[in-house]
Amino acid sequence: MSDWYRDFANSGIGSTITKQFGLPRPVRLRRYTPGQPLLDGPALVGSAGDGRLRAEVESVLKEDGVTVLSPVTADGERGTKVAAVVLDATGVTTPADLAAAHDFLAPAVKRLGTNGRVVVLGEVPGEAPSPALAAARQALDGLVRSLAKELRAGATANLVYVPSGAEASVPGPLRFFLSGRSAYVDGQTVTLSAADVPSADGGATPLAGKVAVVTGAARGIGASIAEVLGRDGAHVVAVDVPAAGQALAEVANRIGGTALQLDITAPDAAARLVEHVVERHGGVDVVVHNAGITRDKLLVNMDAARWNSVLAVNLQAQLDMTQALLDAPGALKDGARVVAVSSQSGIAGNRGQTNYSASKAGVIGMVRSWAAKFASRGATINAVAPGFIVTEMTAKMPFGTREVGARLNSLQQGGLPVDVAEAIAWLAQPASAGVNGQVLRVCGQNLLGA
Amino acid sequence: MSDWYRDFANSGIGSTITKQFGLPRPVRLRRYTPGQPLLDGPALVGSAGDGRLRAEVESVLKEDGVTVLSPVTADGERGTKVAAVVLDATGVTTPADLAAAHDFLAPAVKRLGTNGRVVVLGEVPGEAPSPALAAARQALDGLVRSLAKELRAGATANLVYVPSGAEASVPGPLRFFLSGRSAYVDGQTVTLSAADVPSADGGATPLAGKVAVVTGAARGIGASIAEVLGRDGAHVVAVDVPAAGQALAEVANRIGGTALQLDITAPDAAARLVEHVVERHGGVDVVVHNAGITRDKLLVNMDAARWNSVLAVNLQAQLDMTQALLDAPGALKDGARVVAVSSQSGIAGNRGQTNYSASKAGVIGMVRSWAAKFASRGATINAVAPGFIVTEMTAKMPFGTREVGARLNSLQQGGLPVDVAEAIAWLAQPASAGVNGQVLRVCGQNLLGA
Repeated sequence: MSDWYRDFANSGIGSTITKQFGLPRPVRLRRYTPGQPLLDGPALVGSAGDGRLRAEVESVLKEDGVTVLSPVTADGERGTKVAAVVLDATGVTTPADLAAAHDFLAPAVKRLGTNGRVVVLGEVPGEAPSPALAAARQALDGLVRSLAKELRAGATANLVYVPSGAEASVPGPLRFFLSGRSAYVDGQTVTLSAADVPSADGGATPLAGKVAVVTGAARGIGASIAEVLGRDGAHVVAVDVPAAGQALAEVANRIGGTALQLDITAPDAAARLVEHVVERHGGVDVVVHNAGITRDKLLVNMDAARWNSVLAVNLQAQLDMTQALLDAPGALKDGARVVAVSSQSGIAGNRGQTNYSASKAGVIGMVRSWAAKFASRGATINAVAPGFIVTEMTAKMPFGTREVGARLNSLQQGGLPVDVAEAIAWLAQPASAGVNGQVLRVCGQNLLGA
Repeated sequence: MSDWYRDFANSGIGSTITKQFGLPRPVRLRRYTPGQPLLDGPALVGSAGDGRLRAEVESVLKEDGVTVLSPVTADGERGTKVAAVVLDATGVTTPADLAAAHDFLAPAVKRLGTNGRVVVLGEVPGEAPSPALAAARQALDGLVRSLAKELRAGATANLVYVPSGAEASVPGPLRFFLSGRSAYVDGQTVTLSAADVPSADGGATPLAGKVAVVTGAARGIGASIAEVLGRDGAHVVAVDVPAAGQALAEVANRIGGTALQLDITAPDAAARLVEHVVERHGGVDVVVHNAGITRDKLLVNMDAARWNSVLAVNLQAQLDMTQALLDAPGALKDGARVVAVSSQSGIAGNRGQTNYSASKAGVIGMVRSWAAKFASRGATINAVAPGFIVTEMTAKMPFGTREVGARLNSLQQGGLPVDVAEAIAWLAQPASAGVNGQVLRVCGQNLLGA
């Protein structure tokens, strides 16, 4: 799973060669480890117009021990590298106001170091009372996506839309996008909603005391999700088919969790899952619908079996299990978190994957549709859409296809299973109460899109 | 402007070489010319579940002289090539129902000829009363985007979401996606709305009697828009800066229109435009905000002048002119059509174009925000987002960059200005009353996306 090209590009001779020929020079991304500080350096914080979130941003940073610098600095400070740039753009009310965003960002981004972070906070375009306001807010999306494509050396830029009344929802997402947890999330937009957010973020074990179900947990991304949820304090119920029993048991043992052998497409699967979590654990706090299969063929050559099996595992099972958990008293705890694994293919489509893309688009339709009902229970349901993630499956791809696929993103490298797992673990946190009905791509700003 | 590679790939030796090396083999797209039949062959029409639109689809096709074939055919018919495949998927209510979509599409698409068309009609996911229904509807999006990536030889696949009550809005969009007018629109989704749609479609001159303003009309895409609107029967007021006066006059003369020299960023520009259309033409029916500039630089090197000029021309001027036309009595006629030119960069972002992307994303925010107000006047406002369009500007790009850029889409070729113009002319038609607040990419399903 090592990234030989990245290691090569960062070696002495490799550095010379890649510079000489203008080849991609991916850096080793700063990924989260417990105890890691939020940032490895100071943060530049500014606002465009009269932003209402700047004080909140500065308080989060200071709470986490980050030195906050102002945009206008003494001469001596001007050259200091910064670990993050945060712009409160909630004060932008016209396209002309965007000049202030430019004026702050252009010199600030110049000071951004390796694996730096840019986070822009704006108001929601769809809620704007005038077209000029909606335009100015939507413009931030174009700005941030372009900026993310300009940043180098592992730096990312993301946009958080904060509706009026959702101020309390900001700290969790802000910490995520600044931290190493979001290493492979780049060029993305998340829209928050108002929610009851606990004031404590749980420190190193934000999922302490929580019970989490992860399907497809025996290997690959699923095993990584189980491990990260376990690391963050959850008791994990690792689910996979009986045929993967040995690998599943190993994952569960490694993290002190429970293994549950279950074919999620069996007629009694949802009932058995409900029974297990209610009787053994008194209900479940976190559900990660990760199990999925591919049965690729061009549509013209695809038989009904390929079509139906992919839709059954990747979509119908998610619907059935979620519905059963919602229906059974005590099964899904108040404040529960459901995270469904979608895919970049569910957004952009992919040649040879009409069935897979349909199922993964379906997952997006599902979480958007369920979001309001979940919110009424203090719960959330979201999707993550992985891009090119380096797994055993991609290791089997032809060399050229794999290497090109891994570079077609702003970070110039494939993601790791842990990158998907970190995004899911973040969505599973109590502090993510204000993130609901969202689709978060974990793709390094992959070029492929809708 | 000729596509040498496409011509090469279709030549004797070029065909051999491109097949041998697996190189792209783009075909000459079937583009609209007046008098051209809707389709060059029969259409296969089917439904998944109890679709409510099939009769409407068949009636449109028959009205335009297209032979409609059923999916289940006599042996003799089984091998017939078809020019189009239309699936009414409004009857899909569960993920399992999607099997019927597969069962119809797989053999049907196998019979699709060169420059064929696939159009899928579905219900709107956001309006679904249950998550399973929302999932099944959204799945169509993944299916169609993947299928569009599988089709070859100039064939396209697009999806039209039709809410309940918007049945009368279907014929215009259906004709567009089947016709040569949509040659470079591929893998896209349009959501219709209920509207008063005239029953007559106007034949070869759907814009007869209409007055259309086109900004930036002196050259490139703007000149092509003016020409196509003129061809479709409109009297065109061609607007451009005084410095482009000569070229502007030539365009206006060629199509029997009027030239109006105007710097759209001047303080009195909106007032002068209003005065011109009211006094000279008694109001305007169609407004195309096409004028735009680029001032590319990485954000860290971008000065305020570059930022501000791009935002002023590409976004603020569109807002100001539209507002002035809305405010002045009699300026914007009932049933008016406003089409704003956005860009793929406004959706996906682009390196070196933070200013341009911000402005073009802003345009998207603008049309979405204004859609409801326009609907209340029987009018519409939409955006088109061109991808890689072959113009004088792209001709100046380095050879390699240009050739790669032109192939990074499902049709394996750059679009032409006329492709953007045809999409705009379609949105300008009275028959497009049910298309409002939409962003239509004209990009051959370019890989680059959000």
